[in-house]
Amino acid sequence: MLNFALFGAGRIGKMHAQNIQAFAQSNLKYVFDVYAPAAEAVAKATGAKVAESVEMALADPDVDAVLIATSTDTHVELIIKAAKAGKAILCEKPIDLDTATVNACLEQIKDCHVPIQIGFNRRYDPSHAAVVKAAQDGSIGKLEQIIITSRDPGMAPVEYLKSSGGIFRDMIIHDFDMARFVLGEEIVELQAFGSAMVDEKITEIGDVDSVMVIMKSQSGRLIHINGSRRAIYGYDQRVEAFGSEGMVISNNQTPTSVTRYTKDTTQVKDPLYNFFIDRYVDAYNLQLTSFIENVLAKKPVSPSFEDGRRAQMLADAAQKSLETGQKVTLSW
Amino acid sequence: MLNFALFGAGRIGKMHAQNIQAFAQSNLKYVFDVYAPAAEAVAKATGAKVAESVEMALADPDVDAVLIATSTDTHVELIIKAAKAGKAILCEKPIDLDTATVNACLEQIKDCHVPIQIGFNRRYDPSHAAVVKAAQDGSIGKLEQIIITSRDPGMAPVEYLKSSGGIFRDMIIHDFDMARFVLGEEIVELQAFGSAMVDEKITEIGDVDSVMVIMKSQSGRLIHINGSRRAIYGYDQRVEAFGSEGMVISNNQTPTSVTRYTKDTTQVKDPLYNFFIDRYVDAYNLQLTSFIENVLAKKPVSPSFEDGRRAQMLADAAQKSLETGQKVTLSW
Amino acid sequence: MLNFALFGAGRIGKMHAQNIQAFAQSNLKYVFDVYAPAAEAVAKATGAKVAESVEMALADPDVDAVLIATSTDTHVELIIKAAKAGKAILCEKPIDLDTATVNACLEQIKDCHVPIQIGFNRRYDPSHAAVVKAAQDGSIGKLEQIIITSRDPGMAPVEYLKSSGGIFRDMIIHDFDMARFVLGEEIVELQAFGSAMVDEKITEIGDVDSVMVIMKSQSGRLIHINGSRRAIYGYDQRVEAFGSEGMVISNNQTPTSVTRYTKDTTQVKDPLYNFFIDRYVDAYNLQLTSFIENVLAKKPVSPSFEDGRRAQMLADAAQKSLETGQKVTLSW
Amino acid sequence: MLNFALFGAGRIGKMHAQNIQAFAQSNLKYVFDVYAPAAEAVAKATGAKVAESVEMALADPDVDAVLIATSTDTHVELIIKAAKAGKAILCEKPIDLDTATVNACLEQIKDCHVPIQIGFNRRYDPSHAAVVKAAQDGSIGKLEQIIITSRDPGMAPVEYLKSSGGIFRDMIIHDFDMARFVLGEEIVELQAFGSAMVDEKITEIGDVDSVMVIMKSQSGRLIHINGSRRAIYGYDQRVEAFGSEGMVISNNQTPTSVTRYTKDTTQVKDPLYNFFIDRYVDAYNLQLTSFIENVLAKKPVSPSFEDGRRAQMLADAAQKSLETGQKVTLSW
Repeated sequence: MLNFALFGAGRIGKMHAQNIQAFAQSNLKYVFDVYAPAAEAVAKATGAKVAESVEMALADPDVDAVLIATSTDTHVELIIKAAKAGKAILCEKPIDLDTATVNACLEQIKDCHVPIQIGFNRRYDPSHAAVVKAAQDGSIGKLEQIIITSRDPGMAPVEYLKSSGGIFRDMIIHDFDMARFVLGEEIVELQAFGSAMVDEKITEIGDVDSVMVIMKSQSGRLIHINGSRRAIYGYDQRVEAFGSEGMVISNNQTPTSVTRYTKDTTQVKDPLYNFFIDRYVDAYNLQLTSFIENVLAKKPVSPSFEDGRRAQMLADAAQKSLETGQKVTLSW
Repeated sequence: MLNFALFGAGRIGKMHAQNIQAFAQSNLKYVFDVYAPAAEAVAKATGAKVAESVEMALADPDVDAVLIATSTDTHVELIIKAAKAGKAILCEKPIDLDTATVNACLEQIKDCHVPIQIGFNRRYDPSHAAVVKAAQDGSIGKLEQIIITSRDPGMAPVEYLKSSGGIFRDMIIHDFDMARFVLGEEIVELQAFGSAMVDEKITEIGDVDSVMVIMKSQSGRLIHINGSRRAIYGYDQRVEAFGSEGMVISNNQTPTSVTRYTKDTTQVKDPLYNFFIDRYVDAYNLQLTSFIENVLAKKPVSPSFEDGRRAQMLADAAQKSLETGQKVTLSW
Repeated sequence: MLNFALFGAGRIGKMHAQNIQAFAQSNLKYVFDVYAPAAEAVAKATGAKVAESVEMALADPDVDAVLIATSTDTHVELIIKAAKAGKAILCEKPIDLDTATVNACLEQIKDCHVPIQIGFNRRYDPSHAAVVKAAQDGSIGKLEQIIITSRDPGMAPVEYLKSSGGIFRDMIIHDFDMARFVLGEEIVELQAFGSAMVDEKITEIGDVDSVMVIMKSQSGRLIHINGSRRAIYGYDQRVEAFGSEGMVISNNQTPTSVTRYTKDTTQVKDPLYNFFIDRYVDAYNLQLTSFIENVLAKKPVSPSFEDGRRAQMLADAAQKSLETGQKVTLSW
Repeated sequence: MLNFALFGAGRIGKMHAQNIQAFAQSNLKYVFDVYAPAAEAVAKATGAKVAESVEMALADPDVDAVLIATSTDTHVELIIKAAKAGKAILCEKPIDLDTATVNACLEQIKDCHVPIQIGFNRRYDPSHAAVVKAAQDGSIGKLEQIIITSRDPGMAPVEYLKSSGGIFRDMIIHDFDMARFVLGEEIVELQAFGSAMVDEKITEIGDVDSVMVIMKSQSGRLIHINGSRRAIYGYDQRVEAFGSEGMVISNNQTPTSVTRYTKDTTQVKDPLYNFFIDRYVDAYNLQLTSFIENVLAKKPVSPSFEDGRRAQMLADAAQKSLETGQKVTLSW
């Protein structure tokens, strides 16, 4: 049994709380949120206690693990405190918007030797995972190209996006991680293009809402990511791996297997999921299950802190390429 | 909160136990099985108590509802006992293999006025339910034809099927219920054809393994069911409704949304589910949720005992048509 | 080179004329139609001569073959004349609406030994043909069930249908032939159900517009056909073969491979073909090609006159089953 | 009626010859090929005459149009001769491998005022054309992104590719034209990446076999092309247009509409086309039809010589970006 303290009781924290309670091998002991009513609501729904402070929860020797689902700017501080308290850590992405801060964090915790897993939930999506498996087990031969489509259903207000760190660090970071996961090797060159197509006001905060990236890996493989802050038809999430012996695609999913035929249209499917938690419900569950099982079995957790740091560096490189208009070379 | 006693701790009982525990508004208080280790295993996994007898569980005034997942020949006795004890009842299909026994049961419980829901779980499958909705809300115009495909992944040993009541009462009864559900009216004519195609030994026990049925409803609609005890490619479950303004089909589902391309094949999907509990995981959950919510809200539960009895009568009619080779007319 | 005389210059005759001219190994020498302007239009478009009479065309020793695309009631007379003139014959289905007349025709031509092919064009559809191949080459194991969906895009006026011979002889005869083609053996039992769902006036002429049939073959295989005179979404033509080792389905086709995604719908395809000549354009071409090649190579043509006669007998049996409400047994 | 002279009687010339003969409004008068037996074979199959020389065919005042299907290095010379002879011209892509030569050609023919259409056949593919229509008629709102997948079924020998001009000028030029066609505006920035993934020997001739390109258009739209010289599963040709109100995709096509289900796989489709002439059979026909109709009606033909020249300039830019590793900026 793994006892959890949950930091952050917002939308995603609530989901994690339910998953922790539903899984037979885990228990939610504490929940903390700077906004007390949020913590109380989660506590009530799950039977957990509201922690008065982060420190109080970390001081309890019964707490084995923490799940960090607070705002991004608090992640590093909480990781350091939890690591020093000897707790296993599952932290939402990204570690931080600033790679220097991530590196400083790494320096602080390097001797703690606690399991740290970063919440790149998509690695646990069964369909994306099947693409990764096919790319690496030889069933599509030698992997040659990857195409990732990443479009959010709707764009947050520009005001809110001000503190997001930009589209690459906030949103496309998931896709940089997916690219590394499918590849099984590092990326060495990157070129990014971006435009304000969804909302021109995004330019006022120095950001874009539509992007395309191409990258090359150590062995010469080519990777493309296209992203948009808004797809009117729902959350568009596709991963394609192309190899010498075949291709495998993780396609979009619909809530039902219904097709409709009318006077004007054929084989109409129900709309795509419109919300990341609905689309990735299995992935969030499997991510947590994997963390719990690996921590209990004292096996390595994945994706690791280093995976989080490297995705961050790719996001930085994309941001730099966008700003300079130049190709960026990376060394590892 | 609805407190349950579960009767039957086999494969399907175990699943129900987990669902009862996972749902916030229900609690599993007792589990009973004639084979004590099965009950103990479920009790251990869920925190329920093992009931020493059915009577002991029914005598507890804290028990609000019973879930009957025992062997078919015990259903009627348990329904009568639970109804007389004033408990709400969710009973696996079929009520009984013999319609006379079903009718006798009805006579015994007619004054009990407890909610009784029969476990035709497929009514709660979101995709099948979408077909029913489209058939009844006018979105495909006036409903004219229904085609139901119902093929189990694999055939049980002939020895085991001896006591099944025959393919219509054991297996196709789900599809008779689905036909009534999509129709929203009764069936008045029925012709059944059958063959031993999967295993010729099935003829030794007077049964068949492959069937086709056509039926006509009160308003003249035509319904087809085809069934087989074995589909090598998995559990094949499709419902098609055809109307004056369109068609809607509930297609088969695959565990992932992956498609594969190789030298010889295009757009290959992963295999269909091979097990009814996997295919209908959502349906079993939604069925239970609906029962709990309706019982708590003192609303009617559905499908009702009468729905169970009528599906039975259609199965009887199909059996008679198969045996006589003649069309059977039904009146209600 | 095969020189053709075409009898009948209506919609389908025109299509045949074009195909004859386009194919390198055939030439259209004459066209005849009781309505002279129709014959003249075809003659002008193809460079053929208008024949003043059937007899004149048949008397020309350069004419090797006739294509009969006239109204059904003239087929038998033209077959007899052409056979006696020693011409190879490709005749549109059905041979005649009355099986006695078909039998009398057979008596008259039995010593002529000319190739006679009946225009069951669907046998030449590449997708349906792939189902037949899979059903017979063992790739789905032992064939067990066939499901055929046959829905016309729209219903002709009831007045026009008066002389159609009824839905089974006029429309479903194609599906009886397809069933025999997939089976590779004969049908021995048949039950038909019918309703007036599309237009109630159809009952005034003693016909129905919506039908379902189940049949059993010599070896116990089960076959289902469902038919409708009107599918609002287009010409719905599907053939499914189910066997011990798998299933193969010939699905509907759309003119493009485009899918559209909008706010409310996903993966919308363009409408199905709405016209049999568009849907079966390849089949009509391949049917003619096969006739020409086999006649030139002095090989048997297929489907044969006997295939036409047997489909007719199944249509008769279905009509009888519909009228009596009873199952019909056939012997061959 | 449009009388053609065909220059070039190879694989693609043969196909054009058949199409010219099959179409009612055109006639193939001459065929010329430097390899006389090829010309003779086409002449025999179509009834055309073998021209002793290009000049002889161009001197015949009955010749209205020429179709140039010779090797690329002869295109410009033939265009100039035909234009000066006042013939309408349909020329296979590319105009030339060297843009300077293309510009010189333009200079020579600028006063000839003959219709010149370049054989970017894909513009006439009904599915790709539906994407273009949706991108421009507002049905997907404002166009924002384009993703083009372009993979040949198999790679020609490296030796042969030596004189191809490189993958961008030889193969991806089709996709540059498609991007311009979907956009309806010009491209102003371009970055190309390439690798030798299919056959390392391609590096010996200074070329690559796997490429990815991103481009930005005048209004900021983003375009991605990925290409490979070899897709083991067939000719992979997809075009996706993403806009503010939806998305439309031209997917791959299979020769049948058959799906197969076996023990291990679900919904398997038959292999993709493996040959560009099979995949684009309709496009080649419609391209020719459009040329003939527009020339006869004295309307502009499309795509124009200028379209051919601009696709060429994009290919040059991609080649330069690949060689320098830098983004290329274009002005028009």
